[in-house]
This record gives sequence, structure tokens and C-alpha cells, in this order.
Amino acid sequence: MVLKRDSSIVKNAIKLKQKKYREQEDKFLVEGIRFVEEAILEGLVDHIFYSKDIYSVNGYERVLNNDLPKFEVDESVIKELTNTTTPQRVVAVVRKPKIEINEDLSFVVVVDKVQDPGNLGTIIRTCDAAGVDAVYIIKGTVDVYNDKTLRSTMGSIFHIPILYYETFKDAVENLYSMGFNIYASALDGEDLYKTDLKGKTAVVIGNEANGMSQEDIMLCNKKIRIPMIGRAESLNASVAAAVIIYEALRQRL
Amino acid sequence: MVLKRDSSIVKNAIKLKQKKYREQEDKFLVEGIRFVEEAILEGLVDHIFYSKDIYSVNGYERVLNNDLPKFEVDESVIKELTNTTTPQRVVAVVRKPKIEINEDLSFVVVVDKVQDPGNLGTIIRTCDAAGVDAVYIIKGTVDVYNDKTLRSTMGSIFHIPILYYETFKDAVENLYSMGFNIYASALDGEDLYKTDLKGKTAVVIGNEANGMSQEDIMLCNKKIRIPMIGRAESLNASVAAAVIIYEALRQRL
Repeated sequence: MVLKRDSSIVKNAIKLKQKKYREQEDKFLVEGIRFVEEAILEGLVDHIFYSKDIYSVNGYERVLNNDLPKFEVDESVIKELTNTTTPQRVVAVVRKPKIEINEDLSFVVVVDKVQDPGNLGTIIRTCDAAGVDAVYIIKGTVDVYNDKTLRSTMGSIFHIPILYYETFKDAVENLYSMGFNIYASALDGEDLYKTDLKGKTAVVIGNEANGMSQEDIMLCNKKIRIPMIGRAESLNASVAAAVIIYEALRQRL
Repeated sequence: MVLKRDSSIVKNAIKLKQKKYREQEDKFLVEGIRFVEEAILEGLVDHIFYSKDIYSVNGYERVLNNDLPKFEVDESVIKELTNTTTPQRVVAVVRKPKIEINEDLSFVVVVDKVQDPGNLGTIIRTCDAAGVDAVYIIKGTVDVYNDKTLRSTMGSIFHIPILYYETFKDAVENLYSMGFNIYASALDGEDLYKTDLKGKTAVVIGNEANGMSQEDIMLCNKKIRIPMIGRAESLNASVAAAVIIYEALRQRL
């Protein structure tokens, strides 16, 4: 039996395309075989929607051979649940991960009003790869559970604890209370490669267009600068994040 | 007088949206005040199209106060010349830059079949920032003069020499003849942070989904690996490029 567009279970899933409902329900949508499989392995899937042509895709059994509730829907419903131009054949309703925080935090990345979902997702993926202990997200940053952000995380959303703060001040107070140094990127900062990042280190990544606000920079106790010796005026936000995060990892290895 | 959509000068500009015509004419399209201004300063602009609402935009005089040929067109023509959802009010027909190569090349990035225009543009921007001497682009890589690539370069397309090679083998032969070490990224490579990148260094960035082909890896004399200590299986291509390029810069500074 194919579930219709106007069934309540489909309608409720479609609502999860809106941030408001994602926050209300503490759930989000995950699409594509690989990503849905990862959500299943994490034990976070509520139920699965698929279209009949999933059987033509390699690896379909990785998302269908399990005891989770599954509903066949028309391809048009899958399209409505996703926003991609590349067709997906499977979408899951997934509970937001609650990843436990290492008690002895020593390497944190603070994302302060990054706007581009691709940048945020890529930063989360880089943090995962570099063994960052937690990502702090300040209100005003694009939603982590936005479909574009999720796609860019490549599954890292399930690997790394993410904490949310109403204000940058709240986040830095928490970090200072644990003895962190907090590093803002600023043009008048110390050369990244002359900065010691081996202690308790929190790196702040600011907005793509405007960087961090002066107010937020003043709340940090350290300023760093990525050397730029060519004619480019700045780096892409997720690139700048990666250069700093990986220099910290290099020093800490 | 507003130039019509069917005038030959507009029709020729619209053709430049296709790679074939960009190669034939050795020209491309640049959009937005900031980017057009940079093309003007480089002395590469042929002529400019603008819509009448450009006067409502801050900085319009930076693209209009000059002796270059300028044509007012309808907003719909500007829209057709660009592909952005964010409206632009100015588009220029620009000659491809011919940037002279430093005779004493010592730091080169080879882009081997990167497919995503955003990644390619970001890699070129990072190369510019890190003082890379030249970017070698292997056939099969997305076009540099694609509008999305250009947008991601943030103007760096005008700052750094770009050379094109039919095959990866041609590129490495050129590099070996100058005494370069050529570094492939590979899972069984040497730890990036234990690798000496101070000599004549060419870093190869492979395809996003598949990395470099085994054949191309075998043409390199060195293999490196970015340490990954978390659960992420890989890094975004432009992030991986940045981590390696900036480690080379750190060692060379």
C-alpha cells in the first residue's frame, strides 16, 4: 500500500522541513541511502519513507533490511520531503542526536553567526575529522538541521556534540569557567603559526561577510591571524576554520 | 537608449555563458559591482551592461565612472546574463587574464578533476592567499570561468597564473623537469605533519568523490595523508586542499 500525501504521517514529516517544527519535535529529516543508513546505525531513526524505485539503487537493503516502520510513498512525496535536484529514494524521520560531552573538554570550536549552510556543515565535518571535543553554536547561526547543512556534514552530525547558546557572552562565560583561552580571528591578531594552541583552546569562527562583531572580539582573550601573503583579501569561512583547527591539531598531536 | 535583447552585442554576451564560446572568444562574464570593479582595475573589461536600478546600489560609480563602453539593458537581460538568484545590476564582458608566471616556480597546486565549481573557486582563492606560484588545471576539471567558480574565487582569478594541461602526465612531466616533488593525497601516505614541504612542492588535489585515480597517484613521487583522529571518513575537497597548502606555507614562512 502506498501512503498518500495527505496522510498525517506524511504531513507531519513535511512539517519537519521547517525549523520551528524541528525544534518542537526534536526531530529532523535525513535523505539518501548512505546518510539514512548512518542514522539507523546510530539508533536514531523513527520511521522511513521510500519510493518503489529504491530497488534499482545499489545498497537499498542497507536501509530496508531492519525492523523500523517503513512506508512506501510516491516519488512526488519523496521530492517534496527533500529539496535536492538529484533524486533521492529514501527519507527518514530522525531524532536529534544527544551526544555526551567529554568531561575533560580541551578543544572547542565556537560558531558565531555563520550564515551559509554549506559552510556550517563543512565546519562540523572538519571538527569531527580533527577530533574537536564539542561545537558551540551561537544563536544567529544557520540551523544545523537544515537539509543543506546536513548534506555538508557528511554524517558528522552524528559524531560530535553540539551545544547551543543564546549569546556569545553565555558561551565564553562557560568556556572561561573551565579555563579556556578563546581565540578570535582578527586582522591585528598574532600570527597563527606563532600562537600556542596546545592548552584548553576555543577557536571562534565568525560570519562570512562581516567576521565577528567588535563586541564579540572584545570578549575573547586572544586574537589570531592567518598569514596571507598573496593578494586575496580573505579566505572562505570554512577554509579559515580548517586552517586554524588543523594548526591546533598539529600542535596537539 | 536601452539596448534590446536581440541586439548582436547582447546576443554575443549571452553566448559567453557557454564554455565553448568562452574558449573561442577568450572572454567571460563577470557580475556584481565589486567583481566588475576588480576586472576594470586589471584592465581586462571589454564593455559593461547595466540596468537602470544600478543607481540605487552603493558604489555604482566604481563601475560607471570610466571610459569603457557601457550599455543600459533591461533587468531581464541582466538576469539572463547571470544565473544568480540574488539580483545583480551590472555584468561585464572580460578578457581572460594572462598572468605571467614567476620564472622561479617553487610552489604549485595541481587540480586533478575537481567537479564542484564552488570547490575549484575556493581552492584558487586559497592558493592566492597562501602565495602559491601557479595553479595547474587538468582536463576533466570544472571550468574556471563558470559563473559559480568565479563567484567562489572572490577575484583571485585575476591574481594567480592558471595553466591548463590535457593530461595529468603532461603536468607532472613539466613539474619533474623543473625538479619538483609531487605530493598525492593517499590514505597510505606519510603524515602531512612529518613531511618536508619546503623545497619545490606541487600538491595535487583530486576529485571530490573518488580522489585521484590510481594511475595518477603512481605518477607522483610522494604520498601524504592528513591526520584524521575523529570519526569523519574524509574532508571536503577545498578544506583538504587548504590544510595541505597552509601546512606548506607554514613550513616555508
